Amino acid sequence: MFRGSPALPIFILLRYILYMVLLDGKKLAQKIAEGLKKEVAGFSRRPRLGIVVVGKNPVIQKFIEQKKKFGKEVGVDVRIYPLEESVTTNELRKKVAELVHEKRNSGIIIQLPLPERINAQYILNSVTPDKDIDVLSSRSIGNFAVGRNPAMPPVAGAVKALLDEYGIDYKNKYIVVVGAGGLVGKPIAVWLLNEKATFSVVRSSTKNPQEFLKHADIIISGIGKPNYITGYMVKDGVVAVDAGTSESEGKVVGDIDFESVSQKASFITPVPGGVGPVTVAMLFKNLLVLVKEQKQ
Amino acid sequence: MFRGSPALPIFILLRYILYMVLLDGKKLAQKIAEGLKKEVAGFSRRPRLGIVVVGKNPVIQKFIEQKKKFGKEVGVDVRIYPLEESVTTNELRKKVAELVHEKRNSGIIIQLPLPERINAQYILNSVTPDKDIDVLSSRSIGNFAVGRNPAMPPVAGAVKALLDEYGIDYKNKYIVVVGAGGLVGKPIAVWLLNEKATFSVVRSSTKNPQEFLKHADIIISGIGKPNYITGYMVKDGVVAVDAGTSESEGKVVGDIDFESVSQKASFITPVPGGVGPVTVAMLFKNLLVLVKEQKQ
Repeated sequence: MFRGSPALPIFILLRYILYMVLLDGKKLAQKIAEGLKKEVAGFSRRPRLGIVVVGKNPVIQKFIEQKKKFGKEVGVDVRIYPLEESVTTNELRKKVAELVHEKRNSGIIIQLPLPERINAQYILNSVTPDKDIDVLSSRSIGNFAVGRNPAMPPVAGAVKALLDEYGIDYKNKYIVVVGAGGLVGKPIAVWLLNEKATFSVVRSSTKNPQEFLKHADIIISGIGKPNYITGYMVKDGVVAVDAGTSESEGKVVGDIDFESVSQKASFITPVPGGVGPVTVAMLFKNLLVLVKEQKQ
Repeated sequence: MFRGSPALPIFILLRYILYMVLLDGKKLAQKIAEGLKKEVAGFSRRPRLGIVVVGKNPVIQKFIEQKKKFGKEVGVDVRIYPLEESVTTNELRKKVAELVHEKRNSGIIIQLPLPERINAQYILNSVTPDKDIDVLSSRSIGNFAVGRNPAMPPVAGAVKALLDEYGIDYKNKYIVVVGAGGLVGKPIAVWLLNEKATFSVVRSSTKNPQEFLKHADIIISGIGKPNYITGYMVKDGVVAVDAGTSESEGKVVGDIDFESVSQKASFITPVPGGVGPVTVAMLFKNLLVLVKEQKQ
């Protein structure tokens, strides 16, 4: 509407400084936690979440602490099952199968990444769909793809929860998914297929990601490249959802350059404090969903 | 290179009349059949493909005849299991489970569409992945999504076979998938996710499909709207792959308006005689792949 006016840049800048909304993942996670806490209080038995951890790794440790903290808050028993870095694939698969069959474990997470020599999918497939709160076994993924899984892949669930919370319509918008990995891009794409959304998938091999990004109404990124998407690549009013995490100089950094993109975005997630905390909340939501399914 | 020249339209027209290549599905299906026939000849026992057919429907009948004919050609026993239109969901599920467990059946197809009152996915899920040559059970779909299914969804397999046969690189091109149904768009999208391709999914709800189509290097369509994509929507040199079939005035019609699109395309599938026959060939290829897996 202001197009053509020489005062344009200042107006736009002011508009977005004034109107840009932070997609506050911490706040939403807190809200979800309160709901889950009430639900758990109504259970006859505390649910238990088992986390299988191979080896030691400070980044993994941090993720585990977040889950423990959230579990404590909502009243879920989080139990860590540590295994030696040297565990063989067969030992690990057997151990996971045991833990899955243990009735007291309502859900099992295999903390990723596993050592490279282990075929991660083979291990993930030993979690049965009724306890697979990460939705990473091929059976859960298949059920999700045909619209029959009670749990949603947690990152997709987190993105959906954030968009819903802030009243952002995504079914009639153009969405660009950046990256197509097993934890973010792929489950997001499958979710969008089921949601009747219009979307593009761009990835490391894409020659001209800018051509897609500049038209995107909503960007959902999980490519794991620090500050990969900058302000000049996106259009005014974009909704920027950052599900990418990488380490840069000891800090967790997202894919979206917050400083420049926030000047054009109508909504944007901070990193940390955006998709991350909601993803943790979604894991626990999935746990309760599956506990209720198990009871039926 | 000719851009700007006043003689441009004539040159382009001549160029594509001269250079446009038909993606000949009949010919490729024949070639695949020859390979499969040799393989089957080496088997100790003729494989058997069971097709479960509910009710009567002339269109379904035509598809079945194509499969029977192809089976005869390659030496696979195709057996039809007809069921009354009035069959209940439970009866059907039980019958399918029986046929799947029958050792002599190397593969089972549930001929779609099923009557609307029946939950098709529930029935499809009773085909175990080792006999699911259509890759439509949620378990097969999940295995395919994580890159662990021996068989490819037949339409995706057919599109891949056609592109490969004609030496068309698709990994570094921009692909637009039109439609996201369970038989074409969705499995194609999952395949492209695994292929590290760059693609967009447009569908009935997409407001501006032209904006995508005009940039597409490759269009793969399965939206089921007769002659939906016309020449003015596509760019010069596009590869047009039509996996859509609808009935129009008693004829099978594709999504792509052949007359106008063929004038701009570098490669184009005819309908009939394009993706269809290769899809039938892929079913039998899947059957042999699964027979060999079963033996292991």
